[in-house]
Amino acid sequence: MQKKYAIIVAGGTGSRMGNNLPKQFQLLAERPILMHTLAKFSDSADAPELIVVLNSSMINYWYDECKKYSFTVKHHIVEGGETRFQSVQNGVNYIAEMEPAADSLVAIHDAARPLISSELIDEAYTKTAVLGATVVALASTNSVRYGTEASNKAVDRSQVWIVQTPQTFRWSILSEAFTQEEQPFFTDDASVVEQLDIPIHIVPGEQQNIKITYPEDLKIAEMLIARE
Amino acid sequence: MQKKYAIIVAGGTGSRMGNNLPKQFQLLAERPILMHTLAKFSDSADAPELIVVLNSSMINYWYDECKKYSFTVKHHIVEGGETRFQSVQNGVNYIAEMEPAADSLVAIHDAARPLISSELIDEAYTKTAVLGATVVALASTNSVRYGTEASNKAVDRSQVWIVQTPQTFRWSILSEAFTQEEQPFFTDDASVVEQLDIPIHIVPGEQQNIKITYPEDLKIAEMLIARE
Repeated sequence: MQKKYAIIVAGGTGSRMGNNLPKQFQLLAERPILMHTLAKFSDSADAPELIVVLNSSMINYWYDECKKYSFTVKHHIVEGGETRFQSVQNGVNYIAEMEPAADSLVAIHDAARPLISSELIDEAYTKTAVLGATVVALASTNSVRYGTEASNKAVDRSQVWIVQTPQTFRWSILSEAFTQEEQPFFTDDASVVEQLDIPIHIVPGEQQNIKITYPEDLKIAEMLIARE
Repeated sequence: MQKKYAIIVAGGTGSRMGNNLPKQFQLLAERPILMHTLAKFSDSADAPELIVVLNSSMINYWYDECKKYSFTVKHHIVEGGETRFQSVQNGVNYIAEMEPAADSLVAIHDAARPLISSELIDEAYTKTAVLGATVVALASTNSVRYGTEASNKAVDRSQVWIVQTPQTFRWSILSEAFTQEEQPFFTDDASVVEQLDIPIHIVPGEQQNIKITYPEDLKIAEMLIARE
């Protein structure tokens, strides 16, 4: 079986939250969101090696939080970059030093998506072992239009996929992708890999795998976690 | 000033809710969702004439609810059809009997979107008076891919619009559009109008203008309405 890794991207500054603390450190069901996210990966069948990318200013804060909450899920800390691309690249370079096999699998996941299920994580790895490059995504339940405010067209919504994370890649593919120079159209990790003409496959996602972005998202997450 | 109408589409059967009562009749902040939606239109600056499209099996139930809640917002009841297209068509035919002027404005809105603001309703009418055909829509905050599970491509998310309602049209345009035969690609009202080669303009929407579809959406709506 292939060795598994997960890069948890927690480098953001949380500027869209009505609160100065980056969202991945805010409390959800009485512990920081990032701890929930790490626990979901740790509880998945594959128990991947966990790499957390943190803004350098938050590393000591995070160690204090781990102590305060007696958080024992083992993980590596890597310093984040200026952009998401650079943060993930730092995570990729860190994994490179562990000399993974070409067929090892790396999931990249937003720290602010703590409601992912461990089962969906398992499925992402399993499908990527066969397909090489996958993203978890949801089919749109709303009508979708494409274009500008003044000029746009209806598109077939059954073909529109709202992309979540994890985005999971075979090491041989991911390591090559992140040697590229950063481009403005790299909006997620799959777009970096796609630039090598590698096909991306969809793993159908979960409605509850929301990204906590706005203050009300945290309340929605509290509700969803209470239901679990 | 143009006369305003609103068709509130409440014909659905709510089969996706974990409850047999169609969702537009379920309680939100202690009264049926449809009453909230009607109140939002009634409170808008334009005080449109309200036409509610109901499944024929629910009409007596609705009258009883109006009595029970002493609901006094004036509205017309129209019987729904088999599909959304037919339901809206019935609403359009009902308005036709009132002989509206060619430049009258008709908003079409989902009964299950009670969190729309009266200000956004005003804006939809105001912009449609100039532009002829508009939809309220939100720019995607997530990466988007287009295609099948096995073959898909990243698309520029700044051009992807997640469509909500109201969708608002000048009467001369709407009345002609709904004389067309129903097509499988008519997923919303704008797609019917677009078939006449009429350009559709976007009115930027509100995050809170959610459609109550799943049981958890009702809890989210409770939370959002408590904040209002």
